[in-house]
Amino acid sequence: MHPFLTESIQSVRHCLQEYLATGAPTLLTLEPWGPDLHKRLSEYAERGKMVRGALVTFAYRLFDPDGSVPPACCEAGVAMELLQSFLLIHDDIMDQDDLRRGVPAVHSQYRELMKSHPGAKQYGLSMGICGGDVAAFLAMERIATLSVPPELRSELSALVAREVVSVGLAQMQDVHHGYVSEVDREAILKVYTYKTGRYTFSLPLMVGARIAGASLQQASALARIGEHLGRIFQIRDDQLGIFGRSEEIGKPAGSDIREDKKTIFREELFRTLPQNHVVRSYFGSPLAGEAEMEIVRQEIIRTGVLDRINDLVAEEEQRVNTLVGELEIPPEGVAALNALALYNDTRRT
Amino acid sequence: MHPFLTESIQSVRHCLQEYLATGAPTLLTLEPWGPDLHKRLSEYAERGKMVRGALVTFAYRLFDPDGSVPPACCEAGVAMELLQSFLLIHDDIMDQDDLRRGVPAVHSQYRELMKSHPGAKQYGLSMGICGGDVAAFLAMERIATLSVPPELRSELSALVAREVVSVGLAQMQDVHHGYVSEVDREAILKVYTYKTGRYTFSLPLMVGARIAGASLQQASALARIGEHLGRIFQIRDDQLGIFGRSEEIGKPAGSDIREDKKTIFREELFRTLPQNHVVRSYFGSPLAGEAEMEIVRQEIIRTGVLDRINDLVAEEEQRVNTLVGELEIPPEGVAALNALALYNDTRRT
Repeated sequence: MHPFLTESIQSVRHCLQEYLATGAPTLLTLEPWGPDLHKRLSEYAERGKMVRGALVTFAYRLFDPDGSVPPACCEAGVAMELLQSFLLIHDDIMDQDDLRRGVPAVHSQYRELMKSHPGAKQYGLSMGICGGDVAAFLAMERIATLSVPPELRSELSALVAREVVSVGLAQMQDVHHGYVSEVDREAILKVYTYKTGRYTFSLPLMVGARIAGASLQQASALARIGEHLGRIFQIRDDQLGIFGRSEEIGKPAGSDIREDKKTIFREELFRTLPQNHVVRSYFGSPLAGEAEMEIVRQEIIRTGVLDRINDLVAEEEQRVNTLVGELEIPPEGVAALNALALYNDTRRT
Repeated sequence: MHPFLTESIQSVRHCLQEYLATGAPTLLTLEPWGPDLHKRLSEYAERGKMVRGALVTFAYRLFDPDGSVPPACCEAGVAMELLQSFLLIHDDIMDQDDLRRGVPAVHSQYRELMKSHPGAKQYGLSMGICGGDVAAFLAMERIATLSVPPELRSELSALVAREVVSVGLAQMQDVHHGYVSEVDREAILKVYTYKTGRYTFSLPLMVGARIAGASLQQASALARIGEHLGRIFQIRDDQLGIFGRSEEIGKPAGSDIREDKKTIFREELFRTLPQNHVVRSYFGSPLAGEAEMEIVRQEIIRTGVLDRINDLVAEEEQRVNTLVGELEIPPEGVAALNALALYNDTRRT
């Protein structure tokens, strides 16, 4: 990982701790659920990888590698992490996941509070929806009070709002994919582009760039770079979900196949195999064992699916390289962005 | 209803139609769920009473009764209505309500889309959560791009975000009340103050006032007035839920009693009655008939509960009067605000 990113992760972690410790004042005034949620959000937010928050400072340093990073990067990084908490809290409700970041998901925590009540599940779900909503608006409050000139402050508020609208629509697409078996390439790439690309990469990169005084044109080039970075990240993430060992990926090996996750690997493989091929039946089969998983992996390799997807990633990287070259930023910035693309391509956990 | 309010309602309805017709551009670009949600939000939003949106223009006219209303009031009114859509969509999921504004709730519409799938309910719930989230961020985008100077634009973005944080926390309290039987006066008034008062009244009043150039002091006095207006509105709303006829209130007479809604009437009555009084058992009893409902009504009158609550409303109105007198606004504005308090007190539907 490039030092710009590791340093930025440390910095945003510190900023988030400070924001939560000095009290997220809007949250603390309304007893009892304000302080209650504050405690849960604090535990929750601090367990994150902080990549999204860190990318704000990372982007700032692309344009000003040796300058001192202004407080606004830290503040916007906090907002990104609050947004991430909001989205994960709602995601866990949609996916009915009970664990997140190694501890019970927020809706599961609230369900536990009311465990002796027959409506405990609905209680947890409702409190979780509210908790996510609150985190979302804390994020928007943080953005609307950034230490930057008012013109930029409202520009960034609008930018963040607009991108989160797209994330919500991409999430609808992703939810939908969980309920249908036919999913085309375009739809999969849309989820990769908006849910991972623009949200995880483009958004914080644009915010950091604008704080650094980058032009709108540069910010929009970074947004395109972010889309490529996101697709590279997501493709490799899906590859890990299929080929990774349990210890690496933090979930049972092959669980993405058993859950029939609509990845580009599945789509490409299904296009290659005849309709009645037995390997298709291993997708979405909770009872398929490690032997079947291994057959799927071998089939992905034998049919050239992995090669073709590697070619796709190589193309994405090529485009990142070209766009980065056109950005007109200091050489340290060019190196950092290319390192990020390489990191997304080669990470193993 | 005061002409300032009726005219403002017409105006915000028109603004919302225009906003949705010219396409809510952020929404339309992402196929297929953007256009899908656009259609549902359009049908949904247009059925609203538009009071929250209208109160922005209403507040503007308090300060400038004869001037022409600037576009920002219209824009902010649209944002208020989008926020209301967001909150109602999520509320209906929490309350498991299938009907809203005379048509299927948004989550029920999505459930219907997937009706042949065993997971249709979870699908509807998930798509509804996303739909609400998208409406929330459309609202924030609209606020962040208001036609006002950038300083005010970001002030209002922060103000709206902060108030919605409080609404979310008050909603948690309200959800919680649905699962417990002991609820104290303070907790009930907190829900009235934040969920009805500050959100429905204070927020749009402050936004309109600041657009009109009112001082921060005036805006904050209006916020306090809004809290009183909200409590008056909510108390009378709860009274209608107990005493109103089905035709007036749009739901079966007495349904709030059968559903054991935690109103101030229930709280005051329960404090008056001994622990084992039979009337307590009618609350939360789905099988209680009209005869039992009538006994509850008589008991609320006989024990002086209604009188005491009328006194409370009179006090709230007295405070509105005092605060309005101190506002330093034109006489037309004073009349309009007092008319609003009276309307909240006396409305019958």
